[in-house]
Amino acid sequence: MQNKTLGELAESVGGKVIGDENLTITNIAPLMEAKAGDISFLSNKKYRKHLTTTKASAVITDKETSSSAQALLLVDDPYYAFCQIAEFMFGHRKHPSCGISEKASVSKTAKIGENSNIQDFVTISDNVEIGSGCNIYPGVFVGPNTKIGDNCILYPNAVIFDDCIVGSGVIIQANATIGQDGFGFATHNGEHHKIPHISKVILEDNVEIGANAAIERGSLMDTVIGTGAKIGDSVVIGHGAKIGAGCLLVPQVGIAGTAELGQYCVIGGQSAVTGHLKVGNMVMLAAGSAIINDVEDGKIMAGSPAIEASQAKRAYRTFAKLPEMRQTINKLKKRLDELESKQ
Amino acid sequence: MQNKTLGELAESVGGKVIGDENLTITNIAPLMEAKAGDISFLSNKKYRKHLTTTKASAVITDKETSSSAQALLLVDDPYYAFCQIAEFMFGHRKHPSCGISEKASVSKTAKIGENSNIQDFVTISDNVEIGSGCNIYPGVFVGPNTKIGDNCILYPNAVIFDDCIVGSGVIIQANATIGQDGFGFATHNGEHHKIPHISKVILEDNVEIGANAAIERGSLMDTVIGTGAKIGDSVVIGHGAKIGAGCLLVPQVGIAGTAELGQYCVIGGQSAVTGHLKVGNMVMLAAGSAIINDVEDGKIMAGSPAIEASQAKRAYRTFAKLPEMRQTINKLKKRLDELESKQ
Amino acid sequence: MQNKTLGELAESVGGKVIGDENLTITNIAPLMEAKAGDISFLSNKKYRKHLTTTKASAVITDKETSSSAQALLLVDDPYYAFCQIAEFMFGHRKHPSCGISEKASVSKTAKIGENSNIQDFVTISDNVEIGSGCNIYPGVFVGPNTKIGDNCILYPNAVIFDDCIVGSGVIIQANATIGQDGFGFATHNGEHHKIPHISKVILEDNVEIGANAAIERGSLMDTVIGTGAKIGDSVVIGHGAKIGAGCLLVPQVGIAGTAELGQYCVIGGQSAVTGHLKVGNMVMLAAGSAIINDVEDGKIMAGSPAIEASQAKRAYRTFAKLPEMRQTINKLKKRLDELESKQ
Repeated sequence: MQNKTLGELAESVGGKVIGDENLTITNIAPLMEAKAGDISFLSNKKYRKHLTTTKASAVITDKETSSSAQALLLVDDPYYAFCQIAEFMFGHRKHPSCGISEKASVSKTAKIGENSNIQDFVTISDNVEIGSGCNIYPGVFVGPNTKIGDNCILYPNAVIFDDCIVGSGVIIQANATIGQDGFGFATHNGEHHKIPHISKVILEDNVEIGANAAIERGSLMDTVIGTGAKIGDSVVIGHGAKIGAGCLLVPQVGIAGTAELGQYCVIGGQSAVTGHLKVGNMVMLAAGSAIINDVEDGKIMAGSPAIEASQAKRAYRTFAKLPEMRQTINKLKKRLDELESKQ
Repeated sequence: MQNKTLGELAESVGGKVIGDENLTITNIAPLMEAKAGDISFLSNKKYRKHLTTTKASAVITDKETSSSAQALLLVDDPYYAFCQIAEFMFGHRKHPSCGISEKASVSKTAKIGENSNIQDFVTISDNVEIGSGCNIYPGVFVGPNTKIGDNCILYPNAVIFDDCIVGSGVIIQANATIGQDGFGFATHNGEHHKIPHISKVILEDNVEIGANAAIERGSLMDTVIGTGAKIGDSVVIGHGAKIGAGCLLVPQVGIAGTAELGQYCVIGGQSAVTGHLKVGNMVMLAAGSAIINDVEDGKIMAGSPAIEASQAKRAYRTFAKLPEMRQTINKLKKRLDELESKQ
Repeated sequence: MQNKTLGELAESVGGKVIGDENLTITNIAPLMEAKAGDISFLSNKKYRKHLTTTKASAVITDKETSSSAQALLLVDDPYYAFCQIAEFMFGHRKHPSCGISEKASVSKTAKIGENSNIQDFVTISDNVEIGSGCNIYPGVFVGPNTKIGDNCILYPNAVIFDDCIVGSGVIIQANATIGQDGFGFATHNGEHHKIPHISKVILEDNVEIGANAAIERGSLMDTVIGTGAKIGDSVVIGHGAKIGAGCLLVPQVGIAGTAELGQYCVIGGQSAVTGHLKVGNMVMLAAGSAIINDVEDGKIMAGSPAIEASQAKRAYRTFAKLPEMRQTINKLKKRLDELESKQ
């Protein structure tokens, strides 16, 4: 961390200061937790009221906001500017420069690029290729023939099986498993025979895989995670699934085998997509939901099974009234019986 | 991989060729992805229409199917024949023949069978017994007194605690945890006291445990996974649960402590079975469902809480109509009020 | 294990024997599985009928229970006494006394307390501080600057990232991940930019974290697990969440970022709490449920989205009747049409 002036921060994001450019900023914090010397940010208008009570010395916000209580740093996209400023002030995690550790186990047939660090207790199998600037943490296993691009980070105890392809700028969090055999069996005479999984996993550039996530390799078709997609902790992706570029899969999501998601879908926590179906681009699925049919581009879905979110919201709101509705129906029936008997 | 003639493939599965037995087959692929030279398969009749458009040179199918567009390989069970042929052409993963690595940590009191490979950074604790033909990948931990049969595969960073019993032909995927203490506490005066878990986990022959799955040891009763059962990625099985032979537990399933499943149950993804109950043989549970009461043999269940699937299907279909139903009830009430007032 | 007399067991828990104090007890088992020589326990009155059929030689129970079929050990809290007696007879897992293994990788700047055991293939990074009496199993990774108290157990392949704070008496199960970056991105021009996660995870005293669980570090605010809270297998806790002291989070629970739970909440298996909300003290959430709004102290909630459990129970019971209700509504409508037409 290094203290910055508000003017320096503004310059780093191309923003405009309303107030004292020479103000020293020592930390970054949410509006309600910020102290004097901190910069905060307002991106969700629902928190605008906090501008009058925050103790932050400066607030990153958009050009339509004004405040006399503190200095402002006006930008087009306050949340992105917050992200940039946090990175400018604190940076991301620094990795140890250890080169190739003598305590790692690196095959003689593996190729490791320049400036890549292979830490202790790492296993790099035969014919693996790793690009430059990678950081491989202790306990990582990379199986035979797998190719990894430049500037990747593999955190402790992550496992990548054989023959997989990992792009550049990929981050694999701790204890994630990539490329294990999928859940595929041919049942014959009461025995579940393991189907060979002869395809692989492809993680395109800038993908991030969460801690303890599990991405199965394909049986006959590759499992693909598209460019820039972010996969949360403990997500499971089945064999042969395709996740489009820029998708966000929140923790504990399950995507069944051979499901296809378009680009920039957002799949809420603990949600699921069943197998053999197509989800369009920019589809949003609420947390705890399950898609069981094809979904067109741009739809917002909710519920298990998922229906359009607006419809689901109304149905779930009515749900608690079910016992009362049933009583009402019974009463109406009795009243109708009586009326009819009088005819 | 090795090219085969269609005749060789037919011989390997005891099937009958309709067409040219000398056709060279170079790969195996799904109907819609297959190219010339590929063999494909048709087991689900819903895809029969693809027979006229597939570019596969040959298709594995059943004896009731005919096609003039490509050679056919007729068998009794096309999906199983596909599995056999994929194995015949490609085999399963080959394991490195390293013997007992000097970089492994193997207790002097452990016994390792013939032709077993213990790779780097493996820990084999005191009094462990491992059979012949096993492959133990880097980072695996096997706790004291645990016994493992023949021809097992333990993939990287899998953990098996003390005193467990693993049969023969068992596969444990990467980052799975077997035999940790269960979630059991006795709460007294606001403190949760850890209950000793003095029982173990038993994995019977030919069980497969998915990546990042967690199988708790029992407190007073063993946790048992029956012969040939297959447990998906990120499944959690609670202390003392019994999973019958041949069960299929799809990824992210949760089975609570001391639940008992009969043989050949199929539990859909993200489903749950609550504790202290009995599920019969051959019960099927739809994805995203939860069994909270005992279930008889052969039932097909769905919903959370689960009811019979046929009933659940109708109820869920009606669910989206709830707001409309409520409006209708209100209208009926008004009309009835009016009718009554006229009496 | 060591045989004990019933009198010794009674003394260990301050209970009263009804029957022969010199009875030798060799094992502990549930009522229906117990054999002669075993002690069992009755804490849930629903199993009282088993007192007449159990083969246990003695039963731990409360002072209101009587039985002529076997000896009784009367205590105030039978379940807690069972826990104490299981610990008295069998103890918890013993850990190997290896000191600091030469096969571990321990930074010269790390400080390790007395009587702590660091097993093979462990990585202890720069400036780590570990208290006394800790047991660190193979494959564990502890990142730079992290501080760990006394008498902690870190099971195989658990990962704790940099700058975290772990209290005393903490247990981290195998393959758990603590302190990885959270799922936080600022999306700008179609790219998801990683938000720096400059805060940490704090595990207070006596916390237990389940196998394959994932606890994200905070972006701007620490993630905190309060004293004595127990977190189940495969639970995911998002960045900046606060879990109050004594909470029980059953396996596969998901807590979204910045959610706050009060003290002694019990969150059922596969349940979820969405982000940016407050759950009071002693709230209970049924399995498979999802809290999406603030919840007051002491509420019992169920359903997804969660409503009060009593209401949810009635609504779910009515749910299966939905198709029938809809038919009834249609019939009533027709009858009403007819009646009106007669007016």
